[in-house]
Amino acid sequence: MERFDLLIKEALLPGRGIVDIGIKEGKIHKIAPKIEAQAKETVFVKGKILMPSFANMHTHVPMSLLRGIGADLPLMEWLQKVIWPLEGEFVSPEFVRAGTLLGVAEMIKSGTTLFMDMYFFEEEVGEVCKNAGIRAGLGFGILDFPTKVAKTPEEYLKRAKEFALNLKGEELIFPVLCPHAPYTCSPDTLKKAKELSEELDLFLHIHVAETKGEVEKIKEEYGQTPVLHLENIGFLSEKVLCAHMVWLSEEEMDIVKDRKVKVAHCPESNLKLASGIAPVPEYLRRGIHVCLGTDGSASNDNLDMLEETATMAKLHKGNNLDAKAIDAPTALKVATEKGFSAVGIKAGKVEEGYEADLLLIDTDKPHLQPLYDPVAQVVYCAKSSDIDTVICRGKVLMEKGELKTIDEEEVLHEAKKWGEKIRAFLDRQQTLG
Amino acid sequence: MERFDLLIKEALLPGRGIVDIGIKEGKIHKIAPKIEAQAKETVFVKGKILMPSFANMHTHVPMSLLRGIGADLPLMEWLQKVIWPLEGEFVSPEFVRAGTLLGVAEMIKSGTTLFMDMYFFEEEVGEVCKNAGIRAGLGFGILDFPTKVAKTPEEYLKRAKEFALNLKGEELIFPVLCPHAPYTCSPDTLKKAKELSEELDLFLHIHVAETKGEVEKIKEEYGQTPVLHLENIGFLSEKVLCAHMVWLSEEEMDIVKDRKVKVAHCPESNLKLASGIAPVPEYLRRGIHVCLGTDGSASNDNLDMLEETATMAKLHKGNNLDAKAIDAPTALKVATEKGFSAVGIKAGKVEEGYEADLLLIDTDKPHLQPLYDPVAQVVYCAKSSDIDTVICRGKVLMEKGELKTIDEEEVLHEAKKWGEKIRAFLDRQQTLG
Repeated sequence: MERFDLLIKEALLPGRGIVDIGIKEGKIHKIAPKIEAQAKETVFVKGKILMPSFANMHTHVPMSLLRGIGADLPLMEWLQKVIWPLEGEFVSPEFVRAGTLLGVAEMIKSGTTLFMDMYFFEEEVGEVCKNAGIRAGLGFGILDFPTKVAKTPEEYLKRAKEFALNLKGEELIFPVLCPHAPYTCSPDTLKKAKELSEELDLFLHIHVAETKGEVEKIKEEYGQTPVLHLENIGFLSEKVLCAHMVWLSEEEMDIVKDRKVKVAHCPESNLKLASGIAPVPEYLRRGIHVCLGTDGSASNDNLDMLEETATMAKLHKGNNLDAKAIDAPTALKVATEKGFSAVGIKAGKVEEGYEADLLLIDTDKPHLQPLYDPVAQVVYCAKSSDIDTVICRGKVLMEKGELKTIDEEEVLHEAKKWGEKIRAFLDRQQTLG
Repeated sequence: MERFDLLIKEALLPGRGIVDIGIKEGKIHKIAPKIEAQAKETVFVKGKILMPSFANMHTHVPMSLLRGIGADLPLMEWLQKVIWPLEGEFVSPEFVRAGTLLGVAEMIKSGTTLFMDMYFFEEEVGEVCKNAGIRAGLGFGILDFPTKVAKTPEEYLKRAKEFALNLKGEELIFPVLCPHAPYTCSPDTLKKAKELSEELDLFLHIHVAETKGEVEKIKEEYGQTPVLHLENIGFLSEKVLCAHMVWLSEEEMDIVKDRKVKVAHCPESNLKLASGIAPVPEYLRRGIHVCLGTDGSASNDNLDMLEETATMAKLHKGNNLDAKAIDAPTALKVATEKGFSAVGIKAGKVEEGYEADLLLIDTDKPHLQPLYDPVAQVVYCAKSSDIDTVICRGKVLMEKGELKTIDEEEVLHEAKKWGEKIRAFLDRQQTLG
C-alpha cells in the first residue's frame, strides 16, 4: 500500500470534481477520485474547494503594527508625515518580530504561503517565518539616507550581503536584495545592488513607477521615466521583481516584456494611496509576467490576498469597460501560480509534481450557495474567513480556522501592547503639534 | 430605575469611547459611559466596535439562487443570454421565497437591516422579511414585455398597486414602485408608474444610466440622455431612487441635485459587469444624495455591504488620484445614514432618538489589531465575518454570529436543492447548445 505524509480526502477540485490528494515530501504526489493509502496525517474535507494557496509578492509585513494610521492620505504625505517619523521612533528588532508574527498570522489565516518582504531587521522576519512554516523572500530595504539599520548605501549593502549569506541553505526562506526605489536610491546604489545580486544569484525586489509624481521626479533628475532609467543603468533582468508599475509608457512595457521583468501588481494599495490604476490587462495581453501583492498593512489596510484578487478581477473590468479584461481563472492564476513562478517555485497549481501549497474553502455558508462555478465563486463571493485549511509545502499551518504553528492569542496580546505604546506616542505628538 | 427593552454594555463607539446603550421601543434611548438600568435583554460586548447597520439601497435578493452564473460577461449579454432565460424557466413564488431567505440570511450576517428590492413575486419577499425581522422597501419590476408576473404594463401596474395596498400598515416593510429602467419601460409606462406613486405616496425605484450602451439607446429612441429623458416626462422628484447612475452629463447632475433625486451607487456590480465607474466624488461635491447598494448576487456576486463600502472608498481615490476623494467616515455615512434617510427612516447614526439599527464588530483578530482609528479600521480592514451582532429596530437578529430569526441550516439545504435543479437545467442547455 502506498504511503503519504498527508492525505486529503474528498476535496472539490475545480474542473475535476471530488478527489483525494496524496502528499509526500512537500509535493503533490497523487490526485485521484479515490486513494486508498497509509498516511501520517489524513484530513477529511467533505467537498470543500481545494485550490493553490496565495503568493503575496509585495509587502512590508512588520508594518502590520502601524495598520490604519494616516488613512485617507496620498502616498508621499503618508510616508513623510506619518510613516517615516513613526518608524524612526519605533522600528527595532522587537517591533519587527511582533509585527511579523501578527502579519504572518493574518496571512496564514487568509491563505498565503509565500510572501516577498522588504523592511528592516529582516533576520527577525526570517526567524518568525521558520517557526511558522511559511515561505518568504526577504530583503533589507536599501536606501541612500540613514535609518536605524545603516547610515550609508555601502553599509546597507554590507548588511544585505551578510543577511543573504546567513540564510544560505534554508528550506522555506530565501534572501532577496531590495533597493527601495529609483527615487530613494542613486544610480550608483542601484548598480551596486545589481552587482551584488549577480554575485550572490539573488532576486532584486524594488518599487517602480508607483505614482505620477515619482515619474516626474525621475524624469527631472535623470531625463528618463523610471523603467527607462533602470534599463539605462543595466538594472533590469528576469530576476527583477518590480512592485506597483502603475505608470508605464508603451516603450517601457516593451522593455519589461523583453527583459522578462516580473510585475507585482498592488491594486488596493494603489487605489487607497491614490497612486492610480495599473494597466494590467494591457500587461497581460503583452505577455508580461504579472503577479499580485497586498503591499504593507499600513497602506491597504490588510494582507488579504483573496480580497486583493477579487478587487483586481473587478477593478480592471470596470476601468476598461471590458467584462473579460481579467476573468476569474486569470485572476486566480496571477494571485497564485504567477507569484510562485516569479521566484522559481513550482507551486500554484493543483497538479502532480507541484509543491503542496494549498488551501481549502468551506462553502457551507449563505454567501457561497448555490455553487455553480467554483472558480468564480472563490473570486467573486468568498471571503478569506471562508478559508478553512492552509497547507505550505505539505505541512498543515491552519486547520478548521485554527493556526497550528502560531499562538494566536499571544500574537494578539503582543500586538495590543505595541498598539498602546504607539497610540501614546501619537497622542503626545498631537498634543505637541 | 430606568427600564429598557435592550441594554448593550461596554461597546466601543467611535469618537466616544466605551459606552452603554439603552434601547426602548426600537429606538436608541440613552447613550452614557455607564447605564444602571433594568432591561428585558442585556448584551455584554466587551469593547466591540458599535456602529450603524447598513442600508443596501439596490438589490434583487431572490437572485441569490443564480449567484455566480455567467461570470465575466458584460451586462446586456449576461442579461439576455444567461439571466432572462434562467428566470423564464425558474422564477416562481417558491424560487423567490428560497432565494430571499438565502439572501436575507447573508444580509443579516453581513450587517444589513434595510434593503430596497426589485423583483417578481415580492409578496414572498415581504413574508420572509417579516419573519426575519429585517426592513425592506419592496417593489415588483414593471416592464413593457411579458413575464410570468404580467403580460402588459397595465397588468404590472395593477399588480403593483394591489401589492402596495396589501402592505399598508406594516412595521418593517413598505411598498415601492419599480419601473425597471428607461430602456425597458416606455414613456407611457413610466408616466403611469409616476402617477400611481403620487396616488399612493410611494417611492419610485429604477435603474438609470447604468451603461454607455443604455445612454446611446435612449438617445437614439428619445433624442435625450436618460436623466434628461426622465426629467422631460416629469418622472423625477425627491421620491425617486435611481440605481447605478454611472453615465451622467453635467447638466444631468444639476437636474439630479435640483430634483433631490436619490442615487444608489453600486460600485462592485458596475465594475464586474464592466458598466464603468460612477463619478461619485463629483456627486458628493455637488451635494447629491448618494447611498450604496450591492445590486443582486448574480452580478456582484454577494450582498456584502461592508465589502461594497471598502470598494467604494478605495476605488474613487485611485480613479481620481485623490486620497481624500471619499474618506472612511464619508464612506460609512453613504453606506448607512444616507441609505436610511433616502427613504425617510431616521436611522444610520448612533445617537439618541435614532432607530436602533446597529451592528457590533469583533476586533479580536490578527487583521484588526492594533486598533488606532475604529472608523478606518472598519472600512479598510474589517470583513463582514467580523460582524458579531446585528440589531434591527431594537431586535437582535444575530448574536455571536448566530442568526436568531432564521434557521441557517434549513436555508442552506433549500439553496442547495435549488442549485441542483438549476445546474441540471444548465447542463441540459449546454448539451443541446
